[in-house]
Amino acid sequence: MIRARVTGQVWSTKRIETLPNGALLQVELENGSSMVALDVLGCGVGESVLITTGSVAAAYFTKIKAPVDALIIGSIDE
Amino acid sequence: MIRARVTGQVWSTKRIETLPNGALLQVELENGSSMVALDVLGCGVGESVLITTGSVAAAYFTKIKAPVDALIIGSIDE
Amino acid sequence: MIRARVTGQVWSTKRIETLPNGALLQVELENGSSMVALDVLGCGVGESVLITTGSVAAAYFTKIKAPVDALIIGSIDE
Amino acid sequence: MIRARVTGQVWSTKRIETLPNGALLQVELENGSSMVALDVLGCGVGESVLITTGSVAAAYFTKIKAPVDALIIGSIDE
Amino acid sequence: MIRARVTGQVWSTKRIETLPNGALLQVELENGSSMVALDVLGCGVGESVLITTGSVAAAYFTKIKAPVDALIIGSIDE
Repeated sequence: MIRARVTGQVWSTKRIETLPNGALLQVELENGSSMVALDVLGCGVGESVLITTGSVAAAYFTKIKAPVDALIIGSIDE
Repeated sequence: MIRARVTGQVWSTKRIETLPNGALLQVELENGSSMVALDVLGCGVGESVLITTGSVAAAYFTKIKAPVDALIIGSIDE
Repeated sequence: MIRARVTGQVWSTKRIETLPNGALLQVELENGSSMVALDVLGCGVGESVLITTGSVAAAYFTKIKAPVDALIIGSIDE
Repeated sequence: MIRARVTGQVWSTKRIETLPNGALLQVELENGSSMVALDVLGCGVGESVLITTGSVAAAYFTKIKAPVDALIIGSIDE
Repeated sequence: MIRARVTGQVWSTKRIETLPNGALLQVELENGSSMVALDVLGCGVGESVLITTGSVAAAYFTKIKAPVDALIIGSIDE
């Protein structure tokens, strides 16, 4: 898993229908690169989070084939 | 997921038969590298998009085993 | 698989429910980058470990769909 | 998917039995790194190709569990 | 797939039980980074090998869910 810090939110009105509800949060990784992860925990900007990636992230959604390859799985206690 | 900007389109006449219809768009990532993603949303050059990668991208296609490891899943509101 | 050294532990009180028990260990890879891996072997700080990543890591957990994309699979004899 | 140019061919007499027939082509990616991809289209040295990677590549082979994580899925029109 | 050269062997007495038999070989990739791959072909130090990674590597093992994300699939003829 990867540690990252939430830096903002992304909105996408034109999107494929299987993208589940949940915030699309922009996060910055320790190496300075950034990515977008789906958040189901209600994290906010500045929060330190733990992210899982790839098909493991998509497998969290059991009712649909979610096109999600990055999911926030926890907020890191600081 | 990764943020990227559409920079062009790629055509491939000689291709394997399971490659689904949809535009093959060249995109540039924030770190400057580029990749090709399948687009089913009708995005255009200059558009800021959100991409999912790996088997998660292929799973969007339910009727065939699509050899697609990068799919545009949304256009980012700007 | 990747070689790494355990550098600490991460705690995440606010987490998704399918994250299995087991220590979340911070590890440093040979290239200097770091990641967090789930540990079921009881490894400690300073230990040299072997990590598997991606859905292969999640597949270790047979009873739940664990959102784990990095798992310590062995301690390297030194 | 990734754009690359074919730079040569690789032969492997001692190999695991599930590696399917097809040329093992050495390709150079836009970032200068190289990899080996299985080719079922008959591409040649100098050709610009499109590559899919990971389990998506292996899924193309329906009759066997092919240990292939990089497959040429098209030749790019130039 | 990735080309690499075998540089040594790794032993792991404390390991998870599903790690299959086979040598754990340290390999160096063309970009200078290193990884550990499972070897079922009997490769030796100095040998040039071809490696497949991710769940594709694990899929080679049909009787168990092997936590293997890197597998030597061939020795490269030199």
